[in-house]
Amino acid sequence: MMVTMIQDLKQRVFNVIERTTKPTISNTIFDWFIILLIATNVLLVILDTFPFSDGIKKVFYKIEIISITVFSIEYVFRLWTSNLMYPNLNPIKARLKYVFSFMAIVDLLAIIPFYLPFLISIDLRVLRIIRLLRLLRLLKINRYTNALASVWSVIRNKSAQLVSSLLVLFLLLITASVLLYNMEHVEQPDIFTDFFEGLWWSISVTTQVQFGDNYPATMLGKMLSSLVALLGIGLVAVPTGIISAGFMEAEKNRFDDEKKCPHCGKSLACGQSKVEV
Amino acid sequence: MMVTMIQDLKQRVFNVIERTTKPTISNTIFDWFIILLIATNVLLVILDTFPFSDGIKKVFYKIEIISITVFSIEYVFRLWTSNLMYPNLNPIKARLKYVFSFMAIVDLLAIIPFYLPFLISIDLRVLRIIRLLRLLRLLKINRYTNALASVWSVIRNKSAQLVSSLLVLFLLLITASVLLYNMEHVEQPDIFTDFFEGLWWSISVTTQVQFGDNYPATMLGKMLSSLVALLGIGLVAVPTGIISAGFMEAEKNRFDDEKKCPHCGKSLACGQSKVEV
Amino acid sequence: MMVTMIQDLKQRVFNVIERTTKPTISNTIFDWFIILLIATNVLLVILDTFPFSDGIKKVFYKIEIISITVFSIEYVFRLWTSNLMYPNLNPIKARLKYVFSFMAIVDLLAIIPFYLPFLISIDLRVLRIIRLLRLLRLLKINRYTNALASVWSVIRNKSAQLVSSLLVLFLLLITASVLLYNMEHVEQPDIFTDFFEGLWWSISVTTQVQFGDNYPATMLGKMLSSLVALLGIGLVAVPTGIISAGFMEAEKNRFDDEKKCPHCGKSLACGQSKVEV
Amino acid sequence: MMVTMIQDLKQRVFNVIERTTKPTISNTIFDWFIILLIATNVLLVILDTFPFSDGIKKVFYKIEIISITVFSIEYVFRLWTSNLMYPNLNPIKARLKYVFSFMAIVDLLAIIPFYLPFLISIDLRVLRIIRLLRLLRLLKINRYTNALASVWSVIRNKSAQLVSSLLVLFLLLITASVLLYNMEHVEQPDIFTDFFEGLWWSISVTTQVQFGDNYPATMLGKMLSSLVALLGIGLVAVPTGIISAGFMEAEKNRFDDEKKCPHCGKSLACGQSKVEV
Repeated sequence: MMVTMIQDLKQRVFNVIERTTKPTISNTIFDWFIILLIATNVLLVILDTFPFSDGIKKVFYKIEIISITVFSIEYVFRLWTSNLMYPNLNPIKARLKYVFSFMAIVDLLAIIPFYLPFLISIDLRVLRIIRLLRLLRLLKINRYTNALASVWSVIRNKSAQLVSSLLVLFLLLITASVLLYNMEHVEQPDIFTDFFEGLWWSISVTTQVQFGDNYPATMLGKMLSSLVALLGIGLVAVPTGIISAGFMEAEKNRFDDEKKCPHCGKSLACGQSKVEV
Repeated sequence: MMVTMIQDLKQRVFNVIERTTKPTISNTIFDWFIILLIATNVLLVILDTFPFSDGIKKVFYKIEIISITVFSIEYVFRLWTSNLMYPNLNPIKARLKYVFSFMAIVDLLAIIPFYLPFLISIDLRVLRIIRLLRLLRLLKINRYTNALASVWSVIRNKSAQLVSSLLVLFLLLITASVLLYNMEHVEQPDIFTDFFEGLWWSISVTTQVQFGDNYPATMLGKMLSSLVALLGIGLVAVPTGIISAGFMEAEKNRFDDEKKCPHCGKSLACGQSKVEV
Repeated sequence: MMVTMIQDLKQRVFNVIERTTKPTISNTIFDWFIILLIATNVLLVILDTFPFSDGIKKVFYKIEIISITVFSIEYVFRLWTSNLMYPNLNPIKARLKYVFSFMAIVDLLAIIPFYLPFLISIDLRVLRIIRLLRLLRLLKINRYTNALASVWSVIRNKSAQLVSSLLVLFLLLITASVLLYNMEHVEQPDIFTDFFEGLWWSISVTTQVQFGDNYPATMLGKMLSSLVALLGIGLVAVPTGIISAGFMEAEKNRFDDEKKCPHCGKSLACGQSKVEV
Repeated sequence: MMVTMIQDLKQRVFNVIERTTKPTISNTIFDWFIILLIATNVLLVILDTFPFSDGIKKVFYKIEIISITVFSIEYVFRLWTSNLMYPNLNPIKARLKYVFSFMAIVDLLAIIPFYLPFLISIDLRVLRIIRLLRLLRLLKINRYTNALASVWSVIRNKSAQLVSSLLVLFLLLITASVLLYNMEHVEQPDIFTDFFEGLWWSISVTTQVQFGDNYPATMLGKMLSSLVALLGIGLVAVPTGIISAGFMEAEKNRFDDEKKCPHCGKSLACGQSKVEV
């Protein structure tokens, strides 16, 4: 009977924390509470960069404690009920599968920086970097929007072509950096000290972002800059073209699935209607 | 009989001020007069930034008085005749619907800064900002062109995807700003004073616009800059791809509406012809 | 008989100077001679910017004399034979039509700066500007390539949409310039002196080109800069999307015209095959 | 018998070094060994720009010797077995064909800088430039990826249109450079010394890359800058549109090859099925 009660409780918790297509009131309240808490936390990370008084800093710390508590309980609950998410797997496999899912890792990494100092002794400077993991709380918002998913699906569909264009970019950057270093090193030994300065410059030119600290001085260096800048237009054009094609296909596929021939009434979707002879 | 006369006058005024597919001469004259006045007013807002003599400033003020009078009369007339625009609604509902339409709000906000000082006492500096609402007179041109409408319709069709890519941009900007602040704050405490300087820098890099006042100095900061700059190419590519797809679909739909099947000669426009069995 | 001889000569000249689909040897020689002369002239305009010795300047002048002579003769010959180009018009109408054609105007403007000082007395500084019309000789190359024509045809097909997006850009530039002037004028009266400095800044931000002389200093100015920079991405995206759609349609139309159904062998080109019942 | 043994050996070598659709173990080992060696060599070219101690430089030199040996043997083996690649040609023609293939030239140029000083006496500065040919070893990676090939095929398909847009760019750059030189030369004779400074500026504005050393000072120069910057947006839009169209067609063709008519079930791939009457 105890087991049934716990099973029942688990099902209820699961119904509250898990998103469904038909959300209940408790479901909606929980969702909005978490979204609000995520927004508050992101605001805290931003406000942390301002020199507030110690009184306000203490308020921030209290909010942090509350957030950590809520997010920890959320994580434990999600882990506990995860076997209901994969009913076909045995409980241990279901939990392992859940623990290594993308969102569970994000959830864990978003709370771990708080517990770490209690577990092991950490250098303060390292801790400061680890605390930046709190930014991952931003990604928790992913559960409540399909913005990342829709953009990501197009990028993934085109990943082969995009990787190709990145590889071409990589070859261009390496070549341009080494060439420019060799052209400018003699003229400006203090500025173009090594490969990294060349890379810094070539990324600056290809991405059309000015970082403002190193310019070619020789005629050859200027010619190389012009050439790389012109190729940079192509570098914007190629991934833009790939992604553009991806979005159009996604739209076209969605559209085709809904389309019917206006005269015979048959669906024009591929594979949906068999040939009737 | 008085009522009939007024009704008749109202109809005539409506015919003059309202755009129709078959414009009459009085219609065309009124339109061009308003367009000229809008152009004059925009010129005035621009000329206001130059240090002219008091004599010329007085001329400007006189033109402003004339403009305000004409635009006020136009607003009253449009309001008065608005029940002819929605003949199915009762007069009060028709006027309320008109008052809260986009163009009526623009019309009102474009003249209100002139009347405000006569109604309530306003601080001069606040008034100076309110007077910038005169720039909204530019938007009055919207009635005489479908430029904004055609670009806007594509953007609205793709709004879901564009909002998605803006959300991704927003996540990237926040993350990059906080990270850069933490990387550069120790090295350059005077330049990267708080989150806003980081945000200022990250917008600068992602939009490829150089605002020229803060550069990363540390190795980590430079690497983050490079990474954000490369992601910035994608940030241009994604909305470009979405909008590009939008324009092509718009064009395709228009084209499909005109297209006929080359073999059976029937229009391929969706919904125009029923399936005849 | 004299008339016949002249007619015959005119036909021969026409055959040499006019491009046809089946070029003869004399035709090809003439074309390459003119292309070489155009290239030489463009090189001369460029070399004119370098401080050469007087001896070399004299050589340049001699080449200029030869070029002017050839281009003048070419212009007269083209004018003389232009009635053969439009056989259906009477000779005077044909010549008038030719004189006001785009390429004839380019031809005339490209040689006129040389003759002008002999006809009327001109201030030397004005003459220097007029002499820049020699750059129009570059455009004479248009006769021998369809590069400009093919890019131009896509732009013309999409002109309505492109003008729309330019109008939106124009509205944005005016609004942003006046707003920024009002935000920054009090803080930096020496830099943001009038509307033009604001326009200069707003074009700089929207086109992502840094002209490097004016930056916003106030918080509001920086926020406006960020907003305009983000809208600037859209400003690149909209015309890119329009032109991209244009190129794809051009390609699709060309492809459709050649396409046949692989099963029934009928052309899939619209309007080429009638419906056979 | 000797000949048979050599033939047999040649076939074995060919099977190891040549990529096939069904790679054997020896094949895969050889490929990964070469890829590792290419990566090491690219790393060496990069590390060469840092001031390492002589001891480390010696290690670098030893790796260089090993690499040259391996790449030389690879080149000789590929040359020797090249007649197996073109079985229909006689051995000499096959080898000549191979020697002048793109990848064979890359292979040769990548090793030749090492041997050159032993063959002829070369000035040290010239040698330093020739040694940069080692960067071509990067291109050897082309054998093991189709990244370059897939991007290249789209660019080649659209080469006619891309050359057109480059020609238009070229006309614009020349015209803008000469015009700006003439506008700014009097005002800033030290900065805009000749055509090259104008070209340098106009490439900077059209590619939206700031090289940071010359700005227009006159009103006319600023207006020209603005105009060229706005045209620069189009310059990005045109090739982006062309390449975007190219990628979509490539995708569409691939998709069409797999598509079947939803009603008769026949493949819609062009040329795969004949019209059956």
